[in-house]
Amino acid sequence: MSNLFSNIPNSLPEEVFEDLHTSENLRIERILSHGHSSPNEGWYDQTENEWVIVLKGQGVIEFESGEVFTLSEGDFVNIPAGKKHKVVSTNPDKVTVWLAIFYK
Amino acid sequence: MSNLFSNIPNSLPEEVFEDLHTSENLRIERILSHGHSSPNEGWYDQTENEWVIVLKGQGVIEFESGEVFTLSEGDFVNIPAGKKHKVVSTNPDKVTVWLAIFYK
Repeated sequence: MSNLFSNIPNSLPEEVFEDLHTSENLRIERILSHGHSSPNEGWYDQTENEWVIVLKGQGVIEFESGEVFTLSEGDFVNIPAGKKHKVVSTNPDKVTVWLAIFYK
Repeated sequence: MSNLFSNIPNSLPEEVFEDLHTSENLRIERILSHGHSSPNEGWYDQTENEWVIVLKGQGVIEFESGEVFTLSEGDFVNIPAGKKHKVVSTNPDKVTVWLAIFYK
């Protein structure tokens, strides 16, 4: 047993990506952001599908299509493979905890 | 965009199981419990693997092997297919929100 909210550093000079579980068809990742946006330029263009939920803090995702979603605690979206997107901003005042499920 | 913590009934005579997302290799389910244990008799013996996290409340999972885990907010465990388990109890005072990832 592990805890999603443990081992959160006080200082986050960079975003932190951590695999919580991996298997053939699945990867479960914790992402910690603190005012970061990413990638710095361009778009995420992933070969895997991603279902992602914000569990602490707040983050804003923009899709190349122009859609913009502000995700607060409990908000989730599904991002099909190849759907270009980026994180425009995250809460500068507290750590944002994302739980991302990557699947084939 | 949807929210994991919205549409939680005030009264839960039975546990509520709701698919949030399904695809070929994946099913993401929200489970709401309120003092329930389940199944009433016997063990869950699943054909899919399950990664499960408690995000509100508290639940106690027992494995046939004798292991018992008390999951509070943020605690997660992975349950391989065929690993018999049951929910011994959940918090009687508030709704417990589980997020379960079933995968092949």
